[in-house]
Amino acid sequence: MGRALAAAALAAGHRTVVWNRSPGKAASLVEQGAMLAPTAADATREAPVVITCMIDYAAVRATVTGPVAGTLVNLSSGHAGQARDMAAWAADQGIDYLDGAILTPAPTIGTPAAAILCSGPRTLFDRCRPVLPRGSIHLGAEIGAAAAYEMALLDLFTMAVGGLAHAFALAGAEGIAPADFARFARGIGALLPGMADRFAEQLTTDSFPADVSSLASAGSAVSHVIDAAAVHGLDTAPQQAVRSIIERAVAAGHGGDSYARLASRGVSTPLRHP
Amino acid sequence: MGRALAAAALAAGHRTVVWNRSPGKAASLVEQGAMLAPTAADATREAPVVITCMIDYAAVRATVTGPVAGTLVNLSSGHAGQARDMAAWAADQGIDYLDGAILTPAPTIGTPAAAILCSGPRTLFDRCRPVLPRGSIHLGAEIGAAAAYEMALLDLFTMAVGGLAHAFALAGAEGIAPADFARFARGIGALLPGMADRFAEQLTTDSFPADVSSLASAGSAVSHVIDAAAVHGLDTAPQQAVRSIIERAVAAGHGGDSYARLASRGVSTPLRHP
Repeated sequence: MGRALAAAALAAGHRTVVWNRSPGKAASLVEQGAMLAPTAADATREAPVVITCMIDYAAVRATVTGPVAGTLVNLSSGHAGQARDMAAWAADQGIDYLDGAILTPAPTIGTPAAAILCSGPRTLFDRCRPVLPRGSIHLGAEIGAAAAYEMALLDLFTMAVGGLAHAFALAGAEGIAPADFARFARGIGALLPGMADRFAEQLTTDSFPADVSSLASAGSAVSHVIDAAAVHGLDTAPQQAVRSIIERAVAAGHGGDSYARLASRGVSTPLRHP
Repeated sequence: MGRALAAAALAAGHRTVVWNRSPGKAASLVEQGAMLAPTAADATREAPVVITCMIDYAAVRATVTGPVAGTLVNLSSGHAGQARDMAAWAADQGIDYLDGAILTPAPTIGTPAAAILCSGPRTLFDRCRPVLPRGSIHLGAEIGAAAAYEMALLDLFTMAVGGLAHAFALAGAEGIAPADFARFARGIGALLPGMADRFAEQLTTDSFPADVSSLASAGSAVSHVIDAAAVHGLDTAPQQAVRSIIERAVAAGHGGDSYARLASRGVSTPLRHP
């Protein structure tokens, strides 16, 4: 991802200094015109905008130990609390700080398909915007906003793609060819955008009519799935965990409600840990 | 769902006899021209096609205890083994049997948006087709096929919608308005159809290049999500279960592979229970 960010900056005509733990990985960037800094401090010392993208926030703090003259834009993954801690750390160091989250895969960076969320002072975002990749959006001043969106979206992505893998495994165990299964799986996937809108509508109005499927019938359905997968020795722990949450909601009297009830607010939300 | 099936048959001009455990639920169907049978046996005795849709296969067997002259088409949810057991039971009784699974919600029944999978002898399907709802498809002679598809698709649906609920709960806990979150959640949902195709391609070629995200980075991402959700007291058991499967795959040397590796076949599939 770091390579994609640097390549996009170079392609956009910006003078670009790069640094990586493994300098060899920067070879292609140097060929494209980047300057390879011998240390991270050399990379951060003079740049008006420093963009970091590492495995987590701790890695960034362990790396950015030298002076930072410009604005630090940290696009590493982490949760909102970590973004706020990082902002406090940056303030202590006298560093201007923007937090951000990259929603799209590396090949999209530099193209119109990229989506990069940023949060922090608007003035800093406006100052950095010319060198940020296309598709960078300012969510607001609250420094944790980008990380909060990223975590919730990653939550959905992880469960959906984990479900996709599990479904292909179950289909395969039943002798269904992957391409045959994909045809129908596409259709299930295509339901999600509309369901996201319906969830938002129900959560906004705090009303959960089960116009498609009730939690009681969802609980029964997932039990069938668990039985089917267990026959083939597949790990059904994710589905069992989802069923537990549904059963908690049904026990709390929400059996006739829709799935969106699981995300309802307040201390009684079925998704709160019991 | 039973009401939707009967209403569709009536609307298509078929003479329709209905039966339900709670006869009162049939009142609107009688108004539309259905005959309400006093017992299930009265409903099954003479009909050339008997369509059942109940909570599970056991409920159907407990209900269809009288003579069945025509073809029994069971659209109840269950797994492939249950469909095969049911077919064996029907054969013992001398009943012609088709198994089926309804993929779309009740309001779609009778419309072109319906999708109903059927499996069993082609001659039976052809005979029943005129009275089956629009969107009924014959998958093949193997009686368990419809149930197998249904279970794998329900698996995907349950995980994706469970993830959607969890993501909205996490976003809500972070102060993100449901409608604001839905805008981005739509985008994640829209990725799924393409990912289904990519999974099929990789599983068919048994090759799992991580062109979007590797399992190692997915494991790191889900850990961030678990930390973020735990801060708000949300139940993270589903995400932890997905992480365990990913970690098992990484430990088996698949950290550089894509998510589709989780569904790879053979005794070493990471989705097999350890």
